[in-house]
Amino acid sequence: MDLKKYRAMAEKLVAEMTLEEAAGQLTYQAPAIGRLGVPAYNWWNEALHGVARAGTATVFPQAIALAASFDPAMLETVADAIAAEGRAKYNAFAAEDDRTIYKGLTYWSPNVNIFRDPRWGRGQETYGEDPYLTAELGKAFVRGLQGKGEHYKAVACAKHFAVHSGPEALRHEFDAAASPKDMAETYLYAFEQLVRAGVGGVMGAYNRLNGEPCCAHTFLQKKLREWGFEGYFTSDCWAIADFHEHHKVTRTAPESAALALKNGCDLNCGNVYLQLLIALQEGLVTEEEIRRACVHLMTIRYALGMGQRTEYDAIGYGEVESKAHLRLARTAAEKAAVLLENDGILPLGKKFGGTIAVIGPAAASESALYGNYCGTGSACVTLLEGVRKEFPSAHILYAKGSHLFKDADEDVAAEGDKRSEAVICAKQADVVLLCVGLDATMEGEEGCAPNFGVSGDKKDLNLPPCQMRLVEAVLAVGKPTVVVQTSGSSIVTGAEGRANAVLQAWYPGERGGEAIARILSGRAEAGGRLPVTFYKSCDDLPAFTDYSMQNRTYTNYAGEPLYAFGHGLSYTSFRICDAVLKRRSLRVTVENIGRRSGETVLQVCRKIENPLAERNGRLVGFQRVALKKGEKKCVKVPLSPDWLRLVGEDGGAAAWNGLMTLTVSDGGNAEPFVLRCMVADGEEGEKK
Amino acid sequence: MDLKKYRAMAEKLVAEMTLEEAAGQLTYQAPAIGRLGVPAYNWWNEALHGVARAGTATVFPQAIALAASFDPAMLETVADAIAAEGRAKYNAFAAEDDRTIYKGLTYWSPNVNIFRDPRWGRGQETYGEDPYLTAELGKAFVRGLQGKGEHYKAVACAKHFAVHSGPEALRHEFDAAASPKDMAETYLYAFEQLVRAGVGGVMGAYNRLNGEPCCAHTFLQKKLREWGFEGYFTSDCWAIADFHEHHKVTRTAPESAALALKNGCDLNCGNVYLQLLIALQEGLVTEEEIRRACVHLMTIRYALGMGQRTEYDAIGYGEVESKAHLRLARTAAEKAAVLLENDGILPLGKKFGGTIAVIGPAAASESALYGNYCGTGSACVTLLEGVRKEFPSAHILYAKGSHLFKDADEDVAAEGDKRSEAVICAKQADVVLLCVGLDATMEGEEGCAPNFGVSGDKKDLNLPPCQMRLVEAVLAVGKPTVVVQTSGSSIVTGAEGRANAVLQAWYPGERGGEAIARILSGRAEAGGRLPVTFYKSCDDLPAFTDYSMQNRTYTNYAGEPLYAFGHGLSYTSFRICDAVLKRRSLRVTVENIGRRSGETVLQVCRKIENPLAERNGRLVGFQRVALKKGEKKCVKVPLSPDWLRLVGEDGGAAAWNGLMTLTVSDGGNAEPFVLRCMVADGEEGEKK
Repeated sequence: MDLKKYRAMAEKLVAEMTLEEAAGQLTYQAPAIGRLGVPAYNWWNEALHGVARAGTATVFPQAIALAASFDPAMLETVADAIAAEGRAKYNAFAAEDDRTIYKGLTYWSPNVNIFRDPRWGRGQETYGEDPYLTAELGKAFVRGLQGKGEHYKAVACAKHFAVHSGPEALRHEFDAAASPKDMAETYLYAFEQLVRAGVGGVMGAYNRLNGEPCCAHTFLQKKLREWGFEGYFTSDCWAIADFHEHHKVTRTAPESAALALKNGCDLNCGNVYLQLLIALQEGLVTEEEIRRACVHLMTIRYALGMGQRTEYDAIGYGEVESKAHLRLARTAAEKAAVLLENDGILPLGKKFGGTIAVIGPAAASESALYGNYCGTGSACVTLLEGVRKEFPSAHILYAKGSHLFKDADEDVAAEGDKRSEAVICAKQADVVLLCVGLDATMEGEEGCAPNFGVSGDKKDLNLPPCQMRLVEAVLAVGKPTVVVQTSGSSIVTGAEGRANAVLQAWYPGERGGEAIARILSGRAEAGGRLPVTFYKSCDDLPAFTDYSMQNRTYTNYAGEPLYAFGHGLSYTSFRICDAVLKRRSLRVTVENIGRRSGETVLQVCRKIENPLAERNGRLVGFQRVALKKGEKKCVKVPLSPDWLRLVGEDGGAAAWNGLMTLTVSDGGNAEPFVLRCMVADGEEGEKK
Repeated sequence: MDLKKYRAMAEKLVAEMTLEEAAGQLTYQAPAIGRLGVPAYNWWNEALHGVARAGTATVFPQAIALAASFDPAMLETVADAIAAEGRAKYNAFAAEDDRTIYKGLTYWSPNVNIFRDPRWGRGQETYGEDPYLTAELGKAFVRGLQGKGEHYKAVACAKHFAVHSGPEALRHEFDAAASPKDMAETYLYAFEQLVRAGVGGVMGAYNRLNGEPCCAHTFLQKKLREWGFEGYFTSDCWAIADFHEHHKVTRTAPESAALALKNGCDLNCGNVYLQLLIALQEGLVTEEEIRRACVHLMTIRYALGMGQRTEYDAIGYGEVESKAHLRLARTAAEKAAVLLENDGILPLGKKFGGTIAVIGPAAASESALYGNYCGTGSACVTLLEGVRKEFPSAHILYAKGSHLFKDADEDVAAEGDKRSEAVICAKQADVVLLCVGLDATMEGEEGCAPNFGVSGDKKDLNLPPCQMRLVEAVLAVGKPTVVVQTSGSSIVTGAEGRANAVLQAWYPGERGGEAIARILSGRAEAGGRLPVTFYKSCDDLPAFTDYSMQNRTYTNYAGEPLYAFGHGLSYTSFRICDAVLKRRSLRVTVENIGRRSGETVLQVCRKIENPLAERNGRLVGFQRVALKKGEKKCVKVPLSPDWLRLVGEDGGAAAWNGLMTLTVSDGGNAEPFVLRCMVADGEEGEKK
């Protein structure tokens, strides 16, 4: 998108505005300016995994689930579908002159923060713990959402800039301490990539970073300029008020407004910018600064089509939850699900005719499909409903087994202890599907997830005790058992290594039950790989408040993970036969040596023997590939732009000279293929 | 059920108990007495409209909905199904040795309180506002639940004895003032009928009645003895603690325990009876009183089969949510739904191929199916799902339209204002289904329904403001509109007289969406009649705390109702051709003069010109009848045992001598048939 034309239009418009009018445009509830033909506009909208909070819309799998697909092409398709629904709804809302919150085209998605610590409740919104994966998926989302037209189809927003990943309870006052190396290597990488790829918006984080609040951060703004950012910068909601109320970096609201505006924050989600004219009177900001921010905002609005016809005006309401989008939601959920364990019990076969006991608080729960920041699916299929439909020959028993988190005696007026009911059903079953996990009331955002009084974060990785007891009781029955987990993060159920299969469903979206049931029967397969490490516990992790990447994520964690980053089994088996390095890519020969067609994700991990390098290596390439039974293929796996880069303690980077190990794996049963090569001054040598 | 045999067994058993053992049996969590072979037993279980709070079980329509069927035979079938599921679960739980709460066979259902005031949140649990209807339905429920075997299939409990109907917020301290006439005529009638019909249990109410707490009430106990009560009497839960804590009729827990025990309360749901041995030491109770109560309880347990084989031991888990029960749940929901208005838009026809906009917070809500005191349905069909399935040729749009009760700005993080989405969908529709109403979070029991801080009661009859605004916005679109209401009580939506049809769905149970959709298409018809008056408001009703029946219910309300008691339209039309009085019944000739087969409910209202008689008359007979198109039938409508009775101010009754008007109506469009007759000394004269 070349914004020049729209910027010129915006400059002209803003020049015609009074100063008061221009200042008034800088809050998220921008009023109409009738005499200039500017309609009212509410900048706040959400589309993390579907148009959110604006009523009915296709609910795709949660972002972390989409990440597990390792499939940027699919993510782009999903984002394109979201934009189509968003435009359809925008066209309809605009016709009703409804310009209120969640009705606009500026979506505050994606969240490209790094899922640094498994306790973070909002980790589910991210694309996981790896910067390269996050960047590739984030760019795909931005491409899909913004489209390739003359106008933006919708505008994406990279958030939360930057170094933001909990604790939720502290976010309004927290000062994250990040080293230059961690910033360059981990925290800023995806933002840089998205900005360079043309993301229309960037949102500042609530927290401070190394002393400065992120919504008025000199270093971060400098970076944006370096990367050529031309879009709009918004504060997170009520983040500027945090300046004087919590961070105490200013004393008054006008001071906070001035600090933000002077440091590049164009838009205030909140109401502190209502004080801008007072700040002007006090000499804290200039008219030019106000008009400059307004130009940034009006550029975006023109680029979305304000006052013009656009190529999207004819998008009709039929796009909303269209059959194609619902099918895509199902496909996405299938590609997202990660088969963590399988002793061969899966797939059950479509004709399975025995008794299936569907047990657990996630089984019949719509909220277990959703995750946070979601729309309303009107065609939800729960796990139980999906199983009912997928196995018409089976006899289905259902027992909730336990509350999501309350002990039986906490909620006696609503339900007694349900564990024995679960045991009764399990005893009568040929196969038990044990559906346990969390939902967005148990992990999520401060203020939204009323779990255990920890503001949305998890206090540890274990399921709530009532569910842990349920798992024990059901496993003790001894029937063939498949555990289906709903969560947006690393959890521990107690069934690890003990059940016959474990399937991570994430929050799989409105068609999640259908997708998971199809995986169970074998009509589909679980296509996902873990975009985050699953830990055995967080006991040997650094403190949640520690933003050093030491001993964190698959790159540097010193312990043995429960399930490793990238892990995920297929229903078929692959052999990685060969890998050849060639012009910033690997040519990998891979063969499907199993009993059915299937997909896998080739993953390239680089390792360098150097104190500056990652302890366990780093993902520098991945490629999803589909192979028919018996098929053998040479697959090009592109490598990350920084595959050679070694970052110093000062954040400066140099290309590595010397020996490098590239390991190609598929996250599943294939024997990894190891390539050892010499690289020098960015040139590739090669040696097996 | 002849309890003599079991009573003898109980007496023998109790004689072998130590006093401590006997006293220990008098709380709801009765411990095992190993040496005597007495297993632990928790008396508290619920089955108001399906086995409740014990996990998966068929959820039938809420009690008030079952009442709307005016169909005791169906209610008996439903209760029999509930007992079968209860036995199946009991057998399974007992095999697991799970004797905890909600696992026993003593169900604290039905609730035969009179739905005196439309604000009462628990009115939904009752069979409505008419004593005769309540008694007939209550007896049917008891018959079905208790069965006709050598043992009880399960044991019913008539609650809350007596004169109990809110306000919920005051129930622990309230002293209901009821006149002897109102008690005889209204409040005690159903209890007497159920006791005479052999109900196994009676539960005392929380409140006081004319100064004495109902769980230790000399007059009420005298009545039970008069009626020949042989079952067990339990306190409501924690009601005995109210004696000293709230009613202040005693000073200490031992005094409360003694007062209750001495006044016939055998079982304490609560823990005050743990003080019985102290009360004995203090000379407040006698050993004989403790053993007498224990005999009552053990009689019931033997009658349920304790220590014996029973005819129910083979009932297997397949009964739980069996296909037959799910079908019965659907049929019950169809017979329960009341068609309040219809200009001919309904039925739509199964082949309806236009666009249907399904709008409103009740549309996709499972909780709108449930009502309070429910089990967990694993095969729920929401209104939206039902419509989707029933109209395969139609295009379905869905918009929630508003939160159940929150204004849009109260819950902005979860959802914005949804009204314009509803308008957008309505504009595109050929028919709008506007699904509004309440659920058990909006009306219910103190402590369970967190609505508006009024402890479960409604503060008025209006829908929450956000829903009222939704109704206005959607009606303003002007499309053909059918309103579907979910509530357990009289509500006002603002659509009355303005929509093309209004259908009261109540809380229709787990198959409610399927049932309502079948009614909309015309594959089924709405078979219900209102068991309560729907008022235009409660402005001209007496205070909620006023227990006089003056100006209350259809019998004495002086105003014009919104929809009258007994009202309900059919899809066909009937003519009431003739009525002849004969041996405590009416022989009514009725003809189906409409275009399809159908059912109606013949209702006989007596009216006497006497200051002691009801202002508007009283229901003394009803009979459900099915007629094929064109069919004419003579139907016997039995009359209430008290059809002649006129109750004096002192509660004494005499048979009326003189002129009486009997009006036969069908609650719908049939012209009422009026029979004027002379009755003398209980003899029937007759005159048209």
